[in-house]
Amino acid sequence: MRVESGLARRVTAEGLGTAFLLAVVVGSGIMGERLATGNTAIALLANAIATGAGLIALILAFSGVSGAHFNPLVTLSMAWQKQMPWREVPVYIAAQLAGAFAGVAAAHLMFGEPVFFASEHVRSGMAQCWSEFVASFGLLAVIIGSSRTKPDAVPFAVAAYITAAYWFTASTSFANPAVTLARAASNTFAGIRPADTPGFIIAQLLGAAAATLLFGWLYPVVQYQEKPTTGCGT
Amino acid sequence: MRVESGLARRVTAEGLGTAFLLAVVVGSGIMGERLATGNTAIALLANAIATGAGLIALILAFSGVSGAHFNPLVTLSMAWQKQMPWREVPVYIAAQLAGAFAGVAAAHLMFGEPVFFASEHVRSGMAQCWSEFVASFGLLAVIIGSSRTKPDAVPFAVAAYITAAYWFTASTSFANPAVTLARAASNTFAGIRPADTPGFIIAQLLGAAAATLLFGWLYPVVQYQEKPTTGCGT
Amino acid sequence: MRVESGLARRVTAEGLGTAFLLAVVVGSGIMGERLATGNTAIALLANAIATGAGLIALILAFSGVSGAHFNPLVTLSMAWQKQMPWREVPVYIAAQLAGAFAGVAAAHLMFGEPVFFASEHVRSGMAQCWSEFVASFGLLAVIIGSSRTKPDAVPFAVAAYITAAYWFTASTSFANPAVTLARAASNTFAGIRPADTPGFIIAQLLGAAAATLLFGWLYPVVQYQEKPTTGCGT
Amino acid sequence: MRVESGLARRVTAEGLGTAFLLAVVVGSGIMGERLATGNTAIALLANAIATGAGLIALILAFSGVSGAHFNPLVTLSMAWQKQMPWREVPVYIAAQLAGAFAGVAAAHLMFGEPVFFASEHVRSGMAQCWSEFVASFGLLAVIIGSSRTKPDAVPFAVAAYITAAYWFTASTSFANPAVTLARAASNTFAGIRPADTPGFIIAQLLGAAAATLLFGWLYPVVQYQEKPTTGCGT
Repeated sequence: MRVESGLARRVTAEGLGTAFLLAVVVGSGIMGERLATGNTAIALLANAIATGAGLIALILAFSGVSGAHFNPLVTLSMAWQKQMPWREVPVYIAAQLAGAFAGVAAAHLMFGEPVFFASEHVRSGMAQCWSEFVASFGLLAVIIGSSRTKPDAVPFAVAAYITAAYWFTASTSFANPAVTLARAASNTFAGIRPADTPGFIIAQLLGAAAATLLFGWLYPVVQYQEKPTTGCGT
Repeated sequence: MRVESGLARRVTAEGLGTAFLLAVVVGSGIMGERLATGNTAIALLANAIATGAGLIALILAFSGVSGAHFNPLVTLSMAWQKQMPWREVPVYIAAQLAGAFAGVAAAHLMFGEPVFFASEHVRSGMAQCWSEFVASFGLLAVIIGSSRTKPDAVPFAVAAYITAAYWFTASTSFANPAVTLARAASNTFAGIRPADTPGFIIAQLLGAAAATLLFGWLYPVVQYQEKPTTGCGT
Repeated sequence: MRVESGLARRVTAEGLGTAFLLAVVVGSGIMGERLATGNTAIALLANAIATGAGLIALILAFSGVSGAHFNPLVTLSMAWQKQMPWREVPVYIAAQLAGAFAGVAAAHLMFGEPVFFASEHVRSGMAQCWSEFVASFGLLAVIIGSSRTKPDAVPFAVAAYITAAYWFTASTSFANPAVTLARAASNTFAGIRPADTPGFIIAQLLGAAAATLLFGWLYPVVQYQEKPTTGCGT
Repeated sequence: MRVESGLARRVTAEGLGTAFLLAVVVGSGIMGERLATGNTAIALLANAIATGAGLIALILAFSGVSGAHFNPLVTLSMAWQKQMPWREVPVYIAAQLAGAFAGVAAAHLMFGEPVFFASEHVRSGMAQCWSEFVASFGLLAVIIGSSRTKPDAVPFAVAAYITAAYWFTASTSFANPAVTLARAASNTFAGIRPADTPGFIIAQLLGAAAATLLFGWLYPVVQYQEKPTTGCGT
């Protein structure tokens, strides 16, 4: 019973945290585009700073409950590293997906946009997919590397990485399948055309797998323990 | 006697800290608008970075005395969580309100504006109120979540959250009734029309109450202790 | 003998650290103004971010030797609080002044400007002096408050405060007599007309004194100890 | 055998980390220049924030394996301080060079540029070399000073320093021979004409040597220990 109750709390935290993450990404994109009067660099700077700052706050707020994955790549990699049981993976991912779409809707309501509307923002081609591979490889590298040696710094490491990755990858670094799917439902600054999502997600999975393999060799493996507070944000 | 003396120190810290918070919010708004020559995105970026940075400094400076609430929502939530006695709540809120107006006046004097002048900045409608509900829910979520598990990181979590919330909410995230009322007395970048303040404050109270209830379930409750250094910034 | 050697190291650290601080302030001001093509908000944003980031690095680099004051206000306040002996105050301040001018010269050489040239940047009037009083009061409040309760966070608290204060005070927050005098020798973005320096310095001394008095009451006083690693950055 | 395996891991970490560092520097430079529509201040601001944020993440991710030098100046200074054996220096530097060029190529592929193409960005003259001397002196000062007294803060100290140095030096602070050589192969925002690299590298070596000497006097020397986790990022 205690375990089920624990899972209910963790799933709530994953869903709510992912919802806030998407609200930050989409909401700050809308605000940036509206205010920047055509200067996309300023809009992206605001978007990157808001997302990085939001990640610090959200990981610190939720990691004590669920590990603050907010990302199927992280959940899959944690299970592969035996840091959480595989049977919880589908529940985590379902919560992340539901939360992501709820967060997009929440942002749209704040800015007077339709609840959902398909993006027309084209993001295709090999350079974009290579960007997502690099972005996701780097994200998992940062999460695994920092959580093995400096667990207290993980929220700052992840936030700093994403702030940088908005700028150094040509795709502005989605690096998260739940984020990718939900952003397809937002025809705003942060959107992505639904037809372009499969390529992004495949590249993300490959990048995360490569990082998990390489960092499994670089750092000694830690065994899974029963307490739920392991994961990226702990 | 010692307890009264302790309360005097704490009330001074709450008032002075809230005054500095308002000086930062209003002052950096004026400076940003004056220098940005019409590019509101740059003005808001400066306003958000200054407010976030200021919060880090102010919470670290005052949390050792009063808990660095600077916000009636935080004080009410702390009392509801039994982390401070209800009898101190009115004194804290009075100090926050007095400090907030003093901080607005201090900023106006620095920039050669009238001591107080009513704002004409319209901020009304359901999208704005929904923004304030989301902003206040998130603020209390971040404060409760991070203070339960990573107390040393609370100043950074709160500051990062507000920096993000300036951008991801359509209202630029007031999330604080004392701040809302005092900003009504400033017809500058950060102002709000007095007629729009009741809607903001009701939405803020509802958002903070929802977060306090939900996070009371997500995290185990900690009992109130006599020493005054509990609260959001400890 | 050991004490004299200790003082030599500390004075070197104060001078070198203050030199780097001025190089950051003046150099980033020149770069910002040159690149921003007339948009002063962007120049000040770069100046504020560079100064805040530089302060984190410099306080962490030098606090283990000298306490990383870099500021006569801090040295005077520390001595008043009995955290360092009065006999070392003149040596510290002399090192800060010499370092400040050396740092301005180093920045000018990097950017192909004259070694020294008097500023023509007018910064006068009561609003400017009130700004410097507030800026210096806040700086000492942040240093004393955070160092009493969260010593590891002091570098971040000070840096964050100055980043905010560039924006929320009308004077862009000099808050340091050594910095004020040296910036009078730089006719660039960060300069101040020599005739305006006395008013700034008097306001700074009054603000620092008020904060030292008030925070001596807010926080219990800590006694001076022989080891040199006390001070703002430890 | 264990030692050789340890070296393989460390060399991989140095190469991969330096590759990501160059991808961040060059990639964010390209993105910044493309979006900023001629406003170089905004491009440099994005470049500086992305590089600083990237450094926090990369040092936290890799320092547990290799010390996260990513820079021949740091490796040489560590060996000189007896914190790593001289026989490993050539291997570290080779990995940093190979990683640096790989990172430039990775960034070019993300943005649809040629794999390598020589830069035409002129960066010559005494003011530029003096800038690189100052930048490298400061970098080693920050690394040595912070790692002796606040090792947990080193990732933040280094990242903050580089963010500031992009703005306060006239050369935008390369401060790294591997970075300098690899950026000569990128005719983009971050590039440097190949003919200008020798002057930069000589100035960098002199600055790093001066800082190592001075800080060897300022701080007591720590002896080299067998475990590989010493270095700038530990």
